Amino acid sequence: MLSGPNPLDRIKGWRPYVDATLGFRNHWYPTLFSADVEEGKPRAFKLAGDNILLNRIEGKVYCIRNRCLHRGVNFSSRLECFAKGTITCWYHGWTYRWDTGEVVGILTNPESSQIGKHRIRTFPVQEAKGILFVFMGESEPPPLAHDVPPNFLDDDMAIHGQSRLVKSNWRLGVENGFDAGHIWIHKKSVLVTGNDLALPVGFAPPEGVVTTRLVDEANGPKGVYDLLGECSMPVFESYLNGELVAEGNFGSKRVANNISIWLPGVLKVDPWPQEGMIQFEWYVPADEGTHYYFQTLGRRVANEAERAEFATEFREKWIDLALNGFNDDDIWAREAGQEFYSHPMGWVTERLYEPDIAIVEWRKFASKHNRGIQTVDHLYA
Amino acid sequence: MLSGPNPLDRIKGWRPYVDATLGFRNHWYPTLFSADVEEGKPRAFKLAGDNILLNRIEGKVYCIRNRCLHRGVNFSSRLECFAKGTITCWYHGWTYRWDTGEVVGILTNPESSQIGKHRIRTFPVQEAKGILFVFMGESEPPPLAHDVPPNFLDDDMAIHGQSRLVKSNWRLGVENGFDAGHIWIHKKSVLVTGNDLALPVGFAPPEGVVTTRLVDEANGPKGVYDLLGECSMPVFESYLNGELVAEGNFGSKRVANNISIWLPGVLKVDPWPQEGMIQFEWYVPADEGTHYYFQTLGRRVANEAERAEFATEFREKWIDLALNGFNDDDIWAREAGQEFYSHPMGWVTERLYEPDIAIVEWRKFASKHNRGIQTVDHLYA
Amino acid sequence: MLSGPNPLDRIKGWRPYVDATLGFRNHWYPTLFSADVEEGKPRAFKLAGDNILLNRIEGKVYCIRNRCLHRGVNFSSRLECFAKGTITCWYHGWTYRWDTGEVVGILTNPESSQIGKHRIRTFPVQEAKGILFVFMGESEPPPLAHDVPPNFLDDDMAIHGQSRLVKSNWRLGVENGFDAGHIWIHKKSVLVTGNDLALPVGFAPPEGVVTTRLVDEANGPKGVYDLLGECSMPVFESYLNGELVAEGNFGSKRVANNISIWLPGVLKVDPWPQEGMIQFEWYVPADEGTHYYFQTLGRRVANEAERAEFATEFREKWIDLALNGFNDDDIWAREAGQEFYSHPMGWVTERLYEPDIAIVEWRKFASKHNRGIQTVDHLYA
Repeated sequence: MLSGPNPLDRIKGWRPYVDATLGFRNHWYPTLFSADVEEGKPRAFKLAGDNILLNRIEGKVYCIRNRCLHRGVNFSSRLECFAKGTITCWYHGWTYRWDTGEVVGILTNPESSQIGKHRIRTFPVQEAKGILFVFMGESEPPPLAHDVPPNFLDDDMAIHGQSRLVKSNWRLGVENGFDAGHIWIHKKSVLVTGNDLALPVGFAPPEGVVTTRLVDEANGPKGVYDLLGECSMPVFESYLNGELVAEGNFGSKRVANNISIWLPGVLKVDPWPQEGMIQFEWYVPADEGTHYYFQTLGRRVANEAERAEFATEFREKWIDLALNGFNDDDIWAREAGQEFYSHPMGWVTERLYEPDIAIVEWRKFASKHNRGIQTVDHLYA
Repeated sequence: MLSGPNPLDRIKGWRPYVDATLGFRNHWYPTLFSADVEEGKPRAFKLAGDNILLNRIEGKVYCIRNRCLHRGVNFSSRLECFAKGTITCWYHGWTYRWDTGEVVGILTNPESSQIGKHRIRTFPVQEAKGILFVFMGESEPPPLAHDVPPNFLDDDMAIHGQSRLVKSNWRLGVENGFDAGHIWIHKKSVLVTGNDLALPVGFAPPEGVVTTRLVDEANGPKGVYDLLGECSMPVFESYLNGELVAEGNFGSKRVANNISIWLPGVLKVDPWPQEGMIQFEWYVPADEGTHYYFQTLGRRVANEAERAEFATEFREKWIDLALNGFNDDDIWAREAGQEFYSHPMGWVTERLYEPDIAIVEWRKFASKHNRGIQTVDHLYA
Repeated sequence: MLSGPNPLDRIKGWRPYVDATLGFRNHWYPTLFSADVEEGKPRAFKLAGDNILLNRIEGKVYCIRNRCLHRGVNFSSRLECFAKGTITCWYHGWTYRWDTGEVVGILTNPESSQIGKHRIRTFPVQEAKGILFVFMGESEPPPLAHDVPPNFLDDDMAIHGQSRLVKSNWRLGVENGFDAGHIWIHKKSVLVTGNDLALPVGFAPPEGVVTTRLVDEANGPKGVYDLLGECSMPVFESYLNGELVAEGNFGSKRVANNISIWLPGVLKVDPWPQEGMIQFEWYVPADEGTHYYFQTLGRRVANEAERAEFATEFREKWIDLALNGFNDDDIWAREAGQEFYSHPMGWVTERLYEPDIAIVEWRKFASKHNRGIQTVDHLYA
């Protein structure tokens, strides 16, 4: 270990962000897709260090902490649901209501004084766009619309996606996605070359120009736009010692004009991967060293035919080409940074450059506007 | 980690028990079966965090710490025994007497001043009922009879058993076994249904009645009886919302009338798994996260024919049906609790109910009557 | 953990050595063989806890820290070298000179103010005897000759070798090699019996005779000779209770007459494995729990024919017989000690004997003459 004072004390302006190893609290997060949770078939998930359990009852999805109050075992080790609306712990028969978390029965001691006396932690669930959003926190949840990017919930926006576990802290996911300079890693992607996309290898930000725009209105989502794409000169050719050594893709299709990041950690790239589509992607904290990369693509549809067409196209084309093929590189890039940033000195000794101003603005913004920091204490509260 | 003061300071009345992560000290523990240690063939074992080594010499079994005083390597990495009654370290030839632990020779420097100057830790061994009991401690060992349940050593009590490593702390073993309410997990066991045993799913303890009996006489084993079976109403039917959702087994054979737990952590269930038999089982601490589940069954035998008959029956029936089939559920139940109780907050935030009074009494009793707490310091003393 | 004060405070005279878990700093270490690093094909290595990267450019080998200044990722996760003499980070195109470490370009933002402003850590490299030595430190490097044993760099000394990763701290490697008493483990080695070597099982050091010789001249390597072989009676027969229980090998060839250990941790055994050859072997710290066992054999050659003959003999005979066959036992012996010495109490509770005086002298000598202790802080400087 390092000797002396905590090096993180040197960080000014975004220390809360560095402390948010397990994510922000009192926010909505996507967890599983609607289709993953069938009627009466609970599914476990790890969110912000907490073990949670989701179940669908008469169509509505509920979420409780996946840990019996009595002796701390996970319900999901052996699921026992005897009566609709309740779950019974396999160990001693403690039985809880899914909706309120109340202990409504203890099957091994039906007269126990503990019945009605305790409640297990419940978490609000909201189902939207085929996704189960869970509110990790105890305050009164704000509308879901405050925790997703603009347009995501629009009625005509069809959404499809997938989710995967990535071996890095969630912040490395956010910063990889929001980082304009990282497009360097995508320069040979088939998605780019095969689809005639215009994709530079970087950006030369002009001096003295503000390249971010903050959105922090009280009644809506809070986020940061990176204006680098419009404010700065795209770099399409890389030279070393006067020689051309790398090139971006000089395609005819301009994409990714608008890039923005929103609390609690969700990126919007518009349009992407082609005109008329938007990528919304979350970096959902699982535990200190892993996050769910929750990727979705949206397209406006005017009718059911278009909706069906998009569903087919997503399945047959975009999963492989964009969400896997293109974004696979982002995944290993995040994992490559985990060793460095898992040590406090990583945050202190990184050396940022001009395009990273968007990341720094995000760190400050997130430090200011988050609704709480998840800690280990919360997992036992 | 948690911030602030140690949450365990909130625990009153049984704090020593919580501190006994590696088990209690100055007690007898079963380690291996007699048949496991053949003449001149040392066998390693991990007891209460300590690496020990047992060997049989002219029929008698000795036990030493499995670590050379010189450079700390395990003897068992490459066993070298050149002369009866001694063990030689494979690294530099330090040679110890099995009985006293004395350094009686150093084969790489026969005139060394260290010869005769040091003793390796030896541990008293007592062989009883085909089991090798080791005294983990340095005080004068009490009679073995003080550390085993009543009747275990009776002359006419034949004992057979097996041992397995379980991935939980030893206390989760004790508490699983002594916990009356846990029978809920056994409700569909073939041992119960196939043998016509009467087994409820739980117990409704009466208010204001003492349901434990403490045994703490100076000259005998110290333990706690759980009287729940006789004091309380057995629960055979479980209802939720007025509907029958689970049932115990309405068999004709009454078993498990007497359940008691004894220091240093051994359960007696009498009779079990049927009339005329007793299950004695130990939860032997190996290290912080594992224990040996040392299971034995006893039956009184009047002569050699009965003795042989029990041996056959044990081998052909009871191992599979009782010690494996039935108790397998206990093993995963303990392992399911390990994550919760390996964190200090587990002991503080558990929520107990009426049948757990027996567990709390045991915790207090063990905190008061144990002969010492094993610590990491002891492993280097 | 242990309670109370740090037990290591009890160690007098060689505490710096105990603190050097990651090795000594400001010393030359062998890393890879020359043949391992081909022109323009960088190779990663872990030295003293630091991730480093070696590359050959126009024949000369350079070494930099394998971690981009910008976001801390390893270059070697995806190597990108676009222009001779530079390496480009795959993530954002930061480009460094191999020789100075200077940031000479950032391909995603060619006008960045960070260009020319920072230098990545570079490490001096010296190629000798087909081995790439790296200077781990920041002071002005002394001549390589100060950090290798006498004769190693002699013009007529041909050197061949191999390197393997061993799962123990580097000091257990040094102490195993320099420890005269450990020959006990080699008593049945085919190298010894098959080659008619004279190899005792130990040594009986005379009382009151100094059995080490220190070499600490300012302008040369610093080391300790163990004179036990010449000062003390070799032990060829081991007795227990008056009975002969083990024997050394009464061969006609006397070897290993001179054994010495040199900073930063390299052994010289002369002659070995036969007259006219010398074994030089390093124990190179990788991280806290592993070291590279860098084994070499040297023989004086008068001309190219002899040089070629030795190369063939090394490949066809000595690798298998000596470096693997014989030394394999040393490897598992070191690994067997790792558990004990990875705990501070290991260093405090070991019980040494007379032949270990050489080890204690080495510990004191190394504590006094090392040029620095590698710490985790250095990895972020």
